[in-house]
Amino acid sequence: MKKPQRNPQLNAHGELIHLLSTEGLPKAILHQILDTAEQFLSVNEREVKKVPLLRGKSVFNLFFENSTRTRTTFEIAAKRLSADVINLDIARSSASKGESLLDTIANLSAMQADMFIVRHSESGAPYLIAQHVAPHVHVVNAGDGRHAHPTQALLDMYTIRHYKKDFSSLTVAIVGDIVHSRVARSNIHALTTLGVPEVRVVGPRTLVPGDLREMGVRVCHSMEEGIKDADVVIMLRLQNERMTGGMLPSSGEFFKEFGLTQAKLALAKPDAIVMHPGPINRGVEIESAVADGKQSVILPQVTFGIAVRMAVMGIIAGNEA
Amino acid sequence: MKKPQRNPQLNAHGELIHLLSTEGLPKAILHQILDTAEQFLSVNEREVKKVPLLRGKSVFNLFFENSTRTRTTFEIAAKRLSADVINLDIARSSASKGESLLDTIANLSAMQADMFIVRHSESGAPYLIAQHVAPHVHVVNAGDGRHAHPTQALLDMYTIRHYKKDFSSLTVAIVGDIVHSRVARSNIHALTTLGVPEVRVVGPRTLVPGDLREMGVRVCHSMEEGIKDADVVIMLRLQNERMTGGMLPSSGEFFKEFGLTQAKLALAKPDAIVMHPGPINRGVEIESAVADGKQSVILPQVTFGIAVRMAVMGIIAGNEA
Amino acid sequence: MKKPQRNPQLNAHGELIHLLSTEGLPKAILHQILDTAEQFLSVNEREVKKVPLLRGKSVFNLFFENSTRTRTTFEIAAKRLSADVINLDIARSSASKGESLLDTIANLSAMQADMFIVRHSESGAPYLIAQHVAPHVHVVNAGDGRHAHPTQALLDMYTIRHYKKDFSSLTVAIVGDIVHSRVARSNIHALTTLGVPEVRVVGPRTLVPGDLREMGVRVCHSMEEGIKDADVVIMLRLQNERMTGGMLPSSGEFFKEFGLTQAKLALAKPDAIVMHPGPINRGVEIESAVADGKQSVILPQVTFGIAVRMAVMGIIAGNEA
Repeated sequence: MKKPQRNPQLNAHGELIHLLSTEGLPKAILHQILDTAEQFLSVNEREVKKVPLLRGKSVFNLFFENSTRTRTTFEIAAKRLSADVINLDIARSSASKGESLLDTIANLSAMQADMFIVRHSESGAPYLIAQHVAPHVHVVNAGDGRHAHPTQALLDMYTIRHYKKDFSSLTVAIVGDIVHSRVARSNIHALTTLGVPEVRVVGPRTLVPGDLREMGVRVCHSMEEGIKDADVVIMLRLQNERMTGGMLPSSGEFFKEFGLTQAKLALAKPDAIVMHPGPINRGVEIESAVADGKQSVILPQVTFGIAVRMAVMGIIAGNEA
Repeated sequence: MKKPQRNPQLNAHGELIHLLSTEGLPKAILHQILDTAEQFLSVNEREVKKVPLLRGKSVFNLFFENSTRTRTTFEIAAKRLSADVINLDIARSSASKGESLLDTIANLSAMQADMFIVRHSESGAPYLIAQHVAPHVHVVNAGDGRHAHPTQALLDMYTIRHYKKDFSSLTVAIVGDIVHSRVARSNIHALTTLGVPEVRVVGPRTLVPGDLREMGVRVCHSMEEGIKDADVVIMLRLQNERMTGGMLPSSGEFFKEFGLTQAKLALAKPDAIVMHPGPINRGVEIESAVADGKQSVILPQVTFGIAVRMAVMGIIAGNEA
Repeated sequence: MKKPQRNPQLNAHGELIHLLSTEGLPKAILHQILDTAEQFLSVNEREVKKVPLLRGKSVFNLFFENSTRTRTTFEIAAKRLSADVINLDIARSSASKGESLLDTIANLSAMQADMFIVRHSESGAPYLIAQHVAPHVHVVNAGDGRHAHPTQALLDMYTIRHYKKDFSSLTVAIVGDIVHSRVARSNIHALTTLGVPEVRVVGPRTLVPGDLREMGVRVCHSMEEGIKDADVVIMLRLQNERMTGGMLPSSGEFFKEFGLTQAKLALAKPDAIVMHPGPINRGVEIESAVADGKQSVILPQVTFGIAVRMAVMGIIAGNEA
């Protein structure tokens, strides 16, 4: 029997068997993932080599919430590992015949799935699934509600390590719609574990709740304070689709206060990098001159994301529950 | 020229070239399929090995009626045979430009399809297709109207043989919405051919037409009579989506009379197995204590289904029209 | 820097790196594609052999406009080249989150796509994409607005060369809705380059603009004139979905004047072949006796289309920008 305190992501040997959240992930495992990803990126950094690590394995993309972009990155990563990929449009499937989530999962497990990539609008759904799958099935959280998006956080960590080499003296600013962002939450956990001394969350009071201070971050409600001397600026997408009335100033106002312009970026260190999980809203949270500028590493993030997802899948598939 | 009397599923040598129905399938071929499936299941019965049997072949999933679940099982089976799988969302394709079914089929044949997996709301559509495809194309019926669902029946036969070893002294009860069920019809044909001495169909008069007696089955309108001393109980899903007004008692009434509870299951033999094609409606045709109980083989059915579909595809692809 | 005059389909060595249009494609490259396609078709002309030419490469199907039929032919061709194929339903993806076309393309490039197959309702979209992709990405136009459909034209050229051997003394008639047809335009360019001495466009004045004469074709408004002594008759599909009120006579009238019947076909050479890009409208632009008759090569066109698409993808993937 599992002890309730055990981290459900790890087996009894402390090895990664599911990726559900960056919360509680040991530093050594974070580095194992980043090191493995690095191996998948060849010298010129464009090529991701195809490897036979998951040959004969079946990876199921279970997207209860539509996200073509994220689904595609996992599909590419799984195919580069030589897995068979099954895309399930869950919204149109048995779920609509009244089958429960756990019955759906039990059935898909019985089809000898080896891995479920789960995207769900409900926070915690991937945890529930991981608790109920057969022991041979591994679960990767591809975004659950406002809770977590651990592979996005891991690719952000990869990007930071790639450009800044060392986490131990960095100032990282996460800017924008923090309250709706699973990316922000996952990044804060990972950055803290990796030893980043100063993590700032920056945005208007409606979008940056003060109780985030409990997570050990500095809460800033102005860009002057938030960006100053930062090594890394992570801009978030305004989640307009999750906003309710009155939460948000108009996008014009938001851009004026918190949109990343070249003028504001000048407050950060001269070699600061600019990141964004995409898709970007030009002129809403970031101006084009910055998004396309020489400090932007937004497109390399996408490339690193494939390698990081390959690393996660490769590692968990090699460990037994 | 084909003689009209010839079974369209068999070539002149009596070998299987299409799987359209279990009706008229010789006993030897039924056992050939089950034996082949058994080879795909390794000793521990979880693994289905990937084999190169269909390498370089193209399997087209032609789902004129949506069924993510069935489509997925065929896609997995085909990929385990190393085939290339092309999923066609027919509802959105040329059909909507006014092309006829047979023109669509002729075109897809010309794309060098090797196999069509066909799901259609019209009974007989896979027969029509099999009559018109180029000689190199094999057709598998993945469910047509109320008519047949032969791979479901074959996986049910596999399950029964796996747990009961021998068909020659069994009592098999099929319970529920018989009238709308292509699974029931396909199972009755297969069970009869395999020599099961007593097949019972069990349900209310509105859902179990008396003329089924012509198929050699015993018609029962009470669970007491239907389940008593059965070796195998196959529960069917209430096809609410196919019901018209007045056919069906409320689901509460149905469950009271025909829902499988532990109390009712006690009427069957002590080692009786409980089967269901899924997805199950908990509390409608089966209670959770039974669905999840130790006599339930519902999830192994799913696993066997992959192997059986691999067997069917592997066998027909090896035979020439 | 690229010179603006350079054909964007060719690199500095004159090698094909994108396929955007048949306009401006040198004759030698047209023949290179047809010769390569021929190699993929084995002696009996049914088999398209699977080859490892694109093993480890990722081909992205970017269909901004739905076309299951065309998408399927590219998917099959790419899989026969052993590529990994990623199907993107763009209409449901980031585009709907307000991301611009070029940002979408930049992101997909960063996922290490090797090739984009692009279908778009806007003429010129594949050109725009080809101008902005990373140098390692190749673009194939799978139909853009009314502008071009070069792989359809190339398979038509393959078909003509296959049956007629030589282009230098042919009369080719293209019949029907010329004005809405990207196929017509692409065919006229290819036929002219390949040295066909007489290309005719045939149809009512509303559907065949007189200024096509500038393209070097003969404009005919009667079938008597248009079909007479033709070696090749290419019937086009009536694009009802693109018609605006008053452009078109009723389909009955159209068929009477321009529908291809056996009687009208008798005006052409006795060994004339009949082609159609499909899907056909029986009784609208072609009668069944002709579509299914011995002069029809409509289904071989489909088969050749797979080989031609394999050839295009194989060639461009081997050339560097």
